[in-house]
Amino acid sequence: MKKLLTTFLLTALTSTTVYAATAFTDAKDALDYRQSAFTLIRHNTGDIGEMLQGKVPFDAKRVQQRADALAALATLPWDGFRTAGTEAGGGDAKAEIWADFKDFTAKADKFQLDAKALQTAAQSADQAKIKAAFATFRGNCKACHDKYKAD
Amino acid sequence: MKKLLTTFLLTALTSTTVYAATAFTDAKDALDYRQSAFTLIRHNTGDIGEMLQGKVPFDAKRVQQRADALAALATLPWDGFRTAGTEAGGGDAKAEIWADFKDFTAKADKFQLDAKALQTAAQSADQAKIKAAFATFRGNCKACHDKYKAD
Repeated sequence: MKKLLTTFLLTALTSTTVYAATAFTDAKDALDYRQSAFTLIRHNTGDIGEMLQGKVPFDAKRVQQRADALAALATLPWDGFRTAGTEAGGGDAKAEIWADFKDFTAKADKFQLDAKALQTAAQSADQAKIKAAFATFRGNCKACHDKYKAD
Repeated sequence: MKKLLTTFLLTALTSTTVYAATAFTDAKDALDYRQSAFTLIRHNTGDIGEMLQGKVPFDAKRVQQRADALAALATLPWDGFRTAGTEAGGGDAKAEIWADFKDFTAKADKFQLDAKALQTAAQSADQAKIKAAFATFRGNCKACHDKYKAD
């Protein structure tokens, strides 16, 4: 049984190369990763925004799912700015990011905390609480993009 | 205060259009979304795989972070196959997905459950448990790709 399991594991692990790229083998990889994370963040944020604006019906369960996703997604893009070579830029990332990486990281940390707060608010299903938490969460986008994202 | 807050909210919400696309306005949008989710899944899976293979040092905390991300990410791609127009395909998605959507959804559900099990195993920091849960989790990739993904 142990041998069978080992064989299975080896097959599973060695077949990794077929499907899985490793984490950030180069700056291009890191760029793909962070851009993918931002794509998912944008969609999930946009959907909550439309519900709060009344463009689509408010659905407390869907807001909660979106907020759960955002709490996890908010933690992801930042590693994609730390790989060697990323400081040369790529995508819409401005050189200012690496010139003041401490400030950039502080903004990223606040974004993650505000995503957690949005998740907590979403669990309450209280629209007023969700709107307030969402406004704070959304404020991070502009605060960071104004300084660090080329438009 | 209430008026101030309302103004702030309106500003935050109306400025959504600048940064945020809504959730799946069309099939292209849905394609971007699911591809982004799979990119993040691939990276996080690959990193755990390399740690278990010993290609990079095993770091229980990092495995846990990756597994936490995977538990959330595993829930995301599937909406991107449900938007009207996606049945025409796009990316590597094969027509078989929409021909047998029930089976596809069952496979997606199993993938999510196995991601949760991997997350639980990662919390134990027990390498044998993590390896077993990871092998099961990884098995879903091949099972689904063989039938539904053009290579």
